[in-house]
Amino acid sequence: MPGKIAIIGSGAIGAFYGARLLQAGNDVHFLFHSDIDHVRRHGLRVDSVDGDMSYPTVNAYDSAEKMPVCDLVIVATKSTQNHLLADLLRPVCNENTTVLLLQNGLNGERLIHDMGFGGPVLGGLCFVCCNKLGPGHIAHLENGRIIIGQYRKDEQPVGRTEVQENVAVMFEKAGIPIDRTPDLILSRWHKLLWNMPFNGLCALLNATTDRIMANQATRDLAYAIMQETQAGARALGRDLPDATLDAIMEFTDTLAPYKPSMMLDAINKRDMELEGIYGEPIRTAKELGVEMPRSETLYRELQFLNASYK
Amino acid sequence: MPGKIAIIGSGAIGAFYGARLLQAGNDVHFLFHSDIDHVRRHGLRVDSVDGDMSYPTVNAYDSAEKMPVCDLVIVATKSTQNHLLADLLRPVCNENTTVLLLQNGLNGERLIHDMGFGGPVLGGLCFVCCNKLGPGHIAHLENGRIIIGQYRKDEQPVGRTEVQENVAVMFEKAGIPIDRTPDLILSRWHKLLWNMPFNGLCALLNATTDRIMANQATRDLAYAIMQETQAGARALGRDLPDATLDAIMEFTDTLAPYKPSMMLDAINKRDMELEGIYGEPIRTAKELGVEMPRSETLYRELQFLNASYK
Repeated sequence: MPGKIAIIGSGAIGAFYGARLLQAGNDVHFLFHSDIDHVRRHGLRVDSVDGDMSYPTVNAYDSAEKMPVCDLVIVATKSTQNHLLADLLRPVCNENTTVLLLQNGLNGERLIHDMGFGGPVLGGLCFVCCNKLGPGHIAHLENGRIIIGQYRKDEQPVGRTEVQENVAVMFEKAGIPIDRTPDLILSRWHKLLWNMPFNGLCALLNATTDRIMANQATRDLAYAIMQETQAGARALGRDLPDATLDAIMEFTDTLAPYKPSMMLDAINKRDMELEGIYGEPIRTAKELGVEMPRSETLYRELQFLNASYK
Repeated sequence: MPGKIAIIGSGAIGAFYGARLLQAGNDVHFLFHSDIDHVRRHGLRVDSVDGDMSYPTVNAYDSAEKMPVCDLVIVATKSTQNHLLADLLRPVCNENTTVLLLQNGLNGERLIHDMGFGGPVLGGLCFVCCNKLGPGHIAHLENGRIIIGQYRKDEQPVGRTEVQENVAVMFEKAGIPIDRTPDLILSRWHKLLWNMPFNGLCALLNATTDRIMANQATRDLAYAIMQETQAGARALGRDLPDATLDAIMEFTDTLAPYKPSMMLDAINKRDMELEGIYGEPIRTAKELGVEMPRSETLYRELQFLNASYK
């Protein structure tokens, strides 16, 4: 491993990681959407804080049907597109294919696993700041670290696995810092601790994180939402201790005025990742008897906002 | 009763009811704020669906200190000004003075009672659409009905009282339809059933009631907030049955696109009545062990919005 690698969804995140894997000598196949014509003519360019990359020709496809079956499929679509994933994965998977989901939110790996197309399913949480400057032209501004863990149907901690290790080493050889998590579900809820309060409140109130933190009412609300996330994780047997919540508050206090991805989506009237970040965790907790009423309030308000963009 | 009547806060509501009482031959004394110079020179004018009124000279004051002690004091300030009430009421009250509070929200009568300036305290819930067209110039567009009840320190149902009846008859003689409530606290919570979901959601989301009702997410949220209000009322021994909640949903479905007062405040970047409509009911319920987490979420988001206007 790896032989052929597919990048399903070559937006800023997919194109950035794909270009790094290409740079390290891998055989990478990119599925593009609107950028396909430009990339076919001019290739792919990434302006990165860790070194620029430019590829005049890449294996670029406008349809998953035209792509080869791959050994590793990296899914980097937004979670709002998950209803399309079955059609995008079927052509590039066989029973030996490893699928790695690089996406925000909860339960995406379960969705992919339950499609039953391939072999092992991994999840990755990206800590990276990338955006698209133009067709086939990506800026990588900060970080790049991925936390990788393996998904298993029983959703219990998996520990370290060989598949996880192979994918981790592949990224490390491409210069991407990797953390291995023995418990993907715990790591997903850990990331939700930040995402559930700050993505939604910043988007709803059109305010950067520093303003949410500076106002006592929204600061208290952010903490109360985190406590609901903590309770949700506990219902799944995952402990996120109070010290972790406090550390996230402290960390957020140190951020420069920051616009979370959902706030950027709201500003640009793009579909927000509401199901992955709110709907899935809220429903998962509710099935286990844990209510998240503050998160649910925010979720419903954001649903209204999201519908008003259409 | 009545002899002298004071109107404390001659905005749209205070000026409208004061003008009707004046028209019926009462001795009315108006406390004005910014409109005082204009009213002294040009008087008071009300364009009303029930008959226009124009008074070239009225008893207009720029300070409560200059006003006579009155038999009935009608307080029609916004609840955001309640911190000023002690100084406004002291000069116009003696132990025989009846105070009638015409205001949105909860616990205003308790505040006035606890000041200890006067005699009986009444509360009134206004169902009226008035707005100010210019200095000393009010438009009365719809309705005018008041639900009047007497406040008692133990906050138990009071039944019908002589003071309540006298004030009710005085308004009726002035052409104002009056309902007598035997339980002011129940009536206040009944009005909160509508105010808590719709004032806040419309203000927060900058959307008229029809849009909140048409979106399934906010429609469900509005109902869930009503259920919290119902639970708060029950903690006080007041039953607002499910049929009442359903009737309010049905009623709201029949409204033309409507902007609640708090939404108008938000649009005009004026102070919203957050304490009376959210803070007081939420704290009252919490003291009795009932949480209102959805209402509290909305309250905190609105506090952020309100602070951003300053």
